[in-house]
Amino acid sequence: MTDHRLTQLQARLVRFAAQRNWQPYHTPKNLAAALSVEASELLEIFQWLTPEQSARVMTDPDTAHRVTDEVADVLAYLLQLCDTLGIDLLAALDAKIDRNEQRFPVPGEER
Amino acid sequence: MTDHRLTQLQARLVRFAAQRNWQPYHTPKNLAAALSVEASELLEIFQWLTPEQSARVMTDPDTAHRVTDEVADVLAYLLQLCDTLGIDLLAALDAKIDRNEQRFPVPGEER
Amino acid sequence: MTDHRLTQLQARLVRFAAQRNWQPYHTPKNLAAALSVEASELLEIFQWLTPEQSARVMTDPDTAHRVTDEVADVLAYLLQLCDTLGIDLLAALDAKIDRNEQRFPVPGEER
Amino acid sequence: MTDHRLTQLQARLVRFAAQRNWQPYHTPKNLAAALSVEASELLEIFQWLTPEQSARVMTDPDTAHRVTDEVADVLAYLLQLCDTLGIDLLAALDAKIDRNEQRFPVPGEER
Repeated sequence: MTDHRLTQLQARLVRFAAQRNWQPYHTPKNLAAALSVEASELLEIFQWLTPEQSARVMTDPDTAHRVTDEVADVLAYLLQLCDTLGIDLLAALDAKIDRNEQRFPVPGEER
Repeated sequence: MTDHRLTQLQARLVRFAAQRNWQPYHTPKNLAAALSVEASELLEIFQWLTPEQSARVMTDPDTAHRVTDEVADVLAYLLQLCDTLGIDLLAALDAKIDRNEQRFPVPGEER
Repeated sequence: MTDHRLTQLQARLVRFAAQRNWQPYHTPKNLAAALSVEASELLEIFQWLTPEQSARVMTDPDTAHRVTDEVADVLAYLLQLCDTLGIDLLAALDAKIDRNEQRFPVPGEER
Repeated sequence: MTDHRLTQLQARLVRFAAQRNWQPYHTPKNLAAALSVEASELLEIFQWLTPEQSARVMTDPDTAHRVTDEVADVLAYLLQLCDTLGIDLLAALDAKIDRNEQRFPVPGEER
């Protein structure tokens, strides 16, 4: 399952790390830790907000920039982890949605 | 910046949640929390492994399945969060790599 | 700064790990990862709840048990990490509150 | 199960938040999110270190200060969460170690 744009970004991230000799740091374990740290930095933006405030988070330009920056960081580590482990990320998600459709039938459509 | 395959998966996730009336739960704050919880479930697989063991994690089929499942969950919540907030995830990553190229010049290529 | 009860629990945790030969796994890095994974398991209980629902979480016995179990896990890894690193946890918190009192003056009491 | 020193610190944290009118923000859900964010900030210090480097983290004064600061933050939110939910944190840990002793018998001592 190929995805031109995503594949290009993944290749760019891998090249970026290689050019800076960062591969020794990029063990799967370290990338998983970094991914979870970035996901927490994203959560930090929302931690004291009410549900209503969290829905308006993009109306403030500074906060919008922080959120956009953190989602990018999460995807960056996710793509590098998948590259290192040889996981096809989009195929993984496709298969997961398939399983979830079995696990959580649409109300009224159960057989 | 469009990405046919990723856009399809994002639409499928949004439809999946809508069909089950899960949108009231999917505030940006809750999705950010869920994303960070899934990233930790991914980290949990690696937490007691040595760097060397973490590099071989895909050789065991059960562990490989768990890792693949968790990276899918992380992407699922990331795409739903971006959909809710109107963030173009791939454009965000592209811009972030641009900034990082400025911030971390390649050794020997600094001007 | 001593704390009889907490010190006893910390010693019990250290002995528990030693008797099972778990010390090789208990590097500071691994304990920090495990602590963050446990904190996320605690968050998972709350992730889809409204603020109001989260305030009533102890009224359901099963949920109360899960929450109690997870806060214990967080403290367990925190104490083991501090033991390994030689950190006096209560002195650390005392000093942190001192700093926060300087950083966030009480409204109306600023000088 | 009382613990003079820990109880004093917990009371001090509760008073600190009350004096600044922070209680509306301190729902159990928000405190659980903040706890997990602080645990990730602690993990961030270790994320690129080898196991050996992580064992020497207290030899650098600046890093030692950061680690000490973050463990204090984790305990601060844990105590505030337990106060809000009416959980006796030390009793919870005591009971958890009891259960773990049943669950993981000492090798050679299984009956």
